[in-house]
Amino acid sequence: MTFETRTEVRFAHVDAAGIVFYPRYFEMLNAAVEDWCAQALGVDFRTMHVERRIGVPTVKLHVDFLSPSALGDRLTITLRTREIGRASCRLAVSFAGDGRERLKAEVTLVCMDIDAQRAIPWPDDMRARMVEGLVPAE
Amino acid sequence: MTFETRTEVRFAHVDAAGIVFYPRYFEMLNAAVEDWCAQALGVDFRTMHVERRIGVPTVKLHVDFLSPSALGDRLTITLRTREIGRASCRLAVSFAGDGRERLKAEVTLVCMDIDAQRAIPWPDDMRARMVEGLVPAE
Amino acid sequence: MTFETRTEVRFAHVDAAGIVFYPRYFEMLNAAVEDWCAQALGVDFRTMHVERRIGVPTVKLHVDFLSPSALGDRLTITLRTREIGRASCRLAVSFAGDGRERLKAEVTLVCMDIDAQRAIPWPDDMRARMVEGLVPAE
Amino acid sequence: MTFETRTEVRFAHVDAAGIVFYPRYFEMLNAAVEDWCAQALGVDFRTMHVERRIGVPTVKLHVDFLSPSALGDRLTITLRTREIGRASCRLAVSFAGDGRERLKAEVTLVCMDIDAQRAIPWPDDMRARMVEGLVPAE
Repeated sequence: MTFETRTEVRFAHVDAAGIVFYPRYFEMLNAAVEDWCAQALGVDFRTMHVERRIGVPTVKLHVDFLSPSALGDRLTITLRTREIGRASCRLAVSFAGDGRERLKAEVTLVCMDIDAQRAIPWPDDMRARMVEGLVPAE
Repeated sequence: MTFETRTEVRFAHVDAAGIVFYPRYFEMLNAAVEDWCAQALGVDFRTMHVERRIGVPTVKLHVDFLSPSALGDRLTITLRTREIGRASCRLAVSFAGDGRERLKAEVTLVCMDIDAQRAIPWPDDMRARMVEGLVPAE
Repeated sequence: MTFETRTEVRFAHVDAAGIVFYPRYFEMLNAAVEDWCAQALGVDFRTMHVERRIGVPTVKLHVDFLSPSALGDRLTITLRTREIGRASCRLAVSFAGDGRERLKAEVTLVCMDIDAQRAIPWPDDMRARMVEGLVPAE
Repeated sequence: MTFETRTEVRFAHVDAAGIVFYPRYFEMLNAAVEDWCAQALGVDFRTMHVERRIGVPTVKLHVDFLSPSALGDRLTITLRTREIGRASCRLAVSFAGDGRERLKAEVTLVCMDIDAQRAIPWPDDMRARMVEGLVPAE
C-alpha cells in the first residue's frame, strides 16, 4: 500500500534561482511523514510526541535530486514502507509533479522514547498498521 | 470582504517549548498572502514574480502575539484589506483556532518592479480586485 | 549601553529576488537575542531554557523594513534596552550594513516560566544586568 | 587538505525535543559549502551566483545521523573533496562537537549555468583550487 500526500512549492521554499532550496524539501518530507503517521498509522504527531512521548527521528537518508521544482509547482509525495525493524523502518519516498520526478529518497526512521532518549520497539498499534502497508521493493 | 485560508502547525514550526517559533508564523503569513493574491486578486505568485516581474515585499509589520499555538493546531488566517495606496496596501491579519486568537498583525505591502527594484503603482487588474475587497477598519 | 552582534546574509536567507526573505530576518533577530542573553545578561539560552526553565517569547513586534539586504551582506545588529517591566522588556533593534540601515524594530519580550506557561518576574541576576544596560529612548 | 568551519546550534535549529531538527542541519551544511567556496575555492557565493551566474546545486546526498545535537552545542563541520568530475564533485562531510560525531554525509554538487539551467564544466579557477584540496578516501 502506497501513501500519498500533496504539497505546493511556496515562496518560502525557493532560492535565488527560483527553485526549491533543498533543505526545504526536508521540511516538506517531514510534513509528509506527519501525514503518514496520522492517516496511515493512526497516530498524529501531537498525540505521539506530547501524550505518548514517542519521536520518530530520521537516522539515515539517501536522496537523489532528479529535477528542480519551481515556485507554484504542485507536488505529490509518495511514501512506501520497504522494511520494518524492531525499532526502525525504511521508507521509499518520491516527489513528483507534472509527470516529472523531482527527487527520490530512502529514509530510515527510528522509534524513540523521547524522555529516555533511546530507541524502543514500535508500539503494537503502530507496527500493525505499518505491516499492513508494507510494500517490499520490487 | 474578508479572505480566509487555513494552515496547520507542523513539527517544523515548533520550538523547544513545543509552541510555534515566531519566525515560522511569518512563513505561514507569507503563504496566506500567496493564497490571497492567487484567489482574491487573481494573480498567483509564480505568474506575478516570473512572468509579470512584480513582487509584493512587506515594508511594515505590527504584530501582537496573543496566545501560543501548539503542534497540530489547525489555524484560520483572516486577511482584510484596510487601505489601498498608489503603490502599497495595508492588511489586517488574524490567526485563530479553537475560538482563540493567536496573533493579530498589520502588514503593509508594496508593489515592486523586481527588475528595477523600485515601487510601482498597482497594476489595474490587481487594484480593481483589491478595491472590491476593501474593508475599512470599523 | 548598546549591544552589538554580527551576522551574514546566507543563501538560506534569500528569496527568488535574491534579497532576504523577511521571516529569515526574525531568525537572525532571535539569534541576536540569544547573543544578548549570553553576553550581556550572562545567561545563555541553553542554561536559561534547559536548566532554569525560563523562556523569553516575543509578544509584540513593530518592524520597518527600510532597505533590502542581498546575499553576502555583512550586517551589524544593534540592541538597546528601552524599558524594563516586572516581567517584560522592550528592545530597540536595528540591522545595518555598509552604512545603510536595513530594518529597525521594537521588540517586546516576556519572561516566562516554561513549565507553568505563564509570565514571571525577571530573575534578579537578569534584571540587574538589564538595568545596567538600559538606554531610554532619546 | 581538509576544510573546517564552525557553527552553533541556535534556538531556530531545535525541535520540540530540544535537539536539531534535521532539515536545519542542511541549512548549516549549505552555509559550510558557502564558506568552502569563499575560503577554499576563492569564489564567494554572491560573486558566483550574481556575477558569474554559476550555482552549485546538490544532486545527491547520503547522510547518517549518528547522535543528536542540542541547543548551544558548538559544532565543527569538516569538508573533504573526495572526487572531482568534469561538472561535479563529491564531498565527505562530518559534523562533530565535544568529541562526538553528530552526522556524516556524502554530498554531490554539480556546477550549473544558472541562466541555461544546465550543468557546465567547472571553471578553471575553481577546478584548480579544488584539485589542490583533493583528499581521496582512505
